[in-house]
Amino acid sequence: MRILVLGAAGMVGRKLVERLAREGRLGSDPISQVSLVDVGAPEPPRDAPFAVDSTGGDLAEPGVAEALVAARPDVVFHLAAVVSGEAEADLEKGYRVNLDATRLLLDAIRERGEGYCPRVVSTSSIAVFGPPFPDVIDDEQLTTPATSYGTQKAMTELLLSDYSRRGFLDAIAIRLPTIVVRPGKPNLAASSFFSSIIREPLNGQEALLPVPTDVRHWFASPRSAVGFLLHAATLDSVRLGDRRCLTMPGVSATVADEIEALRRVGGEEAVRRIRHEPDETIMRIVSGWPRAFDARRARDLGFRADADFDEIVRFYVEDDLDVEHGPAPRQASSP
Amino acid sequence: MRILVLGAAGMVGRKLVERLAREGRLGSDPISQVSLVDVGAPEPPRDAPFAVDSTGGDLAEPGVAEALVAARPDVVFHLAAVVSGEAEADLEKGYRVNLDATRLLLDAIRERGEGYCPRVVSTSSIAVFGPPFPDVIDDEQLTTPATSYGTQKAMTELLLSDYSRRGFLDAIAIRLPTIVVRPGKPNLAASSFFSSIIREPLNGQEALLPVPTDVRHWFASPRSAVGFLLHAATLDSVRLGDRRCLTMPGVSATVADEIEALRRVGGEEAVRRIRHEPDETIMRIVSGWPRAFDARRARDLGFRADADFDEIVRFYVEDDLDVEHGPAPRQASSP
Repeated sequence: MRILVLGAAGMVGRKLVERLAREGRLGSDPISQVSLVDVGAPEPPRDAPFAVDSTGGDLAEPGVAEALVAARPDVVFHLAAVVSGEAEADLEKGYRVNLDATRLLLDAIRERGEGYCPRVVSTSSIAVFGPPFPDVIDDEQLTTPATSYGTQKAMTELLLSDYSRRGFLDAIAIRLPTIVVRPGKPNLAASSFFSSIIREPLNGQEALLPVPTDVRHWFASPRSAVGFLLHAATLDSVRLGDRRCLTMPGVSATVADEIEALRRVGGEEAVRRIRHEPDETIMRIVSGWPRAFDARRARDLGFRADADFDEIVRFYVEDDLDVEHGPAPRQASSP
Repeated sequence: MRILVLGAAGMVGRKLVERLAREGRLGSDPISQVSLVDVGAPEPPRDAPFAVDSTGGDLAEPGVAEALVAARPDVVFHLAAVVSGEAEADLEKGYRVNLDATRLLLDAIRERGEGYCPRVVSTSSIAVFGPPFPDVIDDEQLTTPATSYGTQKAMTELLLSDYSRRGFLDAIAIRLPTIVVRPGKPNLAASSFFSSIIREPLNGQEALLPVPTDVRHWFASPRSAVGFLLHAATLDSVRLGDRRCLTMPGVSATVADEIEALRRVGGEEAVRRIRHEPDETIMRIVSGWPRAFDARRARDLGFRADADFDEIVRFYVEDDLDVEHGPAPRQASSP
């Protein structure tokens, strides 16, 4: 089995490739070849039991998509995207990367012909939904994106469904929750603090909390996100019908829930490292985000979320904390 | 006021331009200039009280959109489209015309800049919805198109909403019901018979009915369609918020309702000209079409549909029948 991973240098992409290298197979099929692509050539995983090639390139440039699908990969993970903030700041770049590059990829697959019909697993986003939201958003919610990023993702979902219906490819677009706890440093995303308030305290550092603790949002761990991708790559797509986009299950939690989970893992000392510093801009942005989903279609298809926010924190500790800063402060020194 | 009409040679486009020429104004604003565009240069209306220019061209060709918006029209009616059957038969043409050409138009408007923000009225379609349908589809129905045409229209709706939200233009996409009674000859569209079974009998000709009389669908007259376009061009778009697509009101009627309306206008003689000739293919296609909508948002915004199917038939008689074949057989010669 040959696998192509677009956006392989991103956080989720790296974790996906590490897991593929660890397992050596996708479902029941041994992997023979994995091709990694990103803007810069991604670093190959260590000790992979399959051949790995790595390419730097821009999928939106003419000919790049054709070259990538020439080897007829059986599964394409399409994770490459310009994120929400950048797509809002740079309209043309957002449409070029999030919509046009995807379409070039899909057309390159379509034009291979000769019965070629790979599974395409594409990451979409809950940003396809816009306010006003019900308390719990179900699978029948209308897509009314409030950002250009959400618009590009919703347009791509439509395209993936149409191309699948016509038999050019066999796509599944998965709408990921906000991924926490992200390893590494805080970034400029408005959602960055959801990870920071867990990650920084567990690393002995101070974190800023810009919103009230009753803010509720929708989360999944990086480990679950990789699980979603692998399940999407292997499930029987006949069960999806012509609607090829799925809201992934997740954990609906408040910032207070996050803090309590942190307390259970890192103790009072860790919690004291969170400094409340209200930020009107971030509060306004986050108030327009969904709070919870009933992801029934995905659950019925076997997608599994984290059990609760404690598990999300534990996965961070197991998968990333030791790597980042040595052993975790599992037991706090004071109550 | 300057107006640009794209797709001006189509049936709805011609009727729109005739009405503009008759009224000389749009809302309260006198019209100074109307620019007509289609694949072939459209015939200008007779006796228009404003300047008219007419251009043949392909909006998907580089530079065409820029040239068309260079005069900074205040209102753009974008009616140009590849229809459903053709978009299904020729995938590339469908995406090129229905999606790419529209995007080139919107980008040409965006790139004019300097505060230019025209009203763009774009015809969308109930084909953005796909089965399974509820008996009555409301404004919260998810768009799950079952055709490439519906996909292209749904993608365009998203783009129009995003560009409007960002202030590049001021768009309204109106989802037209199936338009009946179309003047002229039957065409290859699966929906053609809905017009034929009224039009042909009133013109003394036989019409084929390929489906059972209990088939229900959603209709508007050409006169109402033009009314929708004019209302969309003049309403206060602030009332739309960021959701720039609207399902238009219409008449939900069965084929039996159509036949009774025909009987009231054309008598038994006309009804006898309908020959039942079941066509499995058309029956299958039509069974996947919606039957009725609750178009509350549009009604609340002042869009008005035909009162019933009798009115739809009467509008055909008043607007088109005499033009096509001389005076109508208003009273049948036998009961």
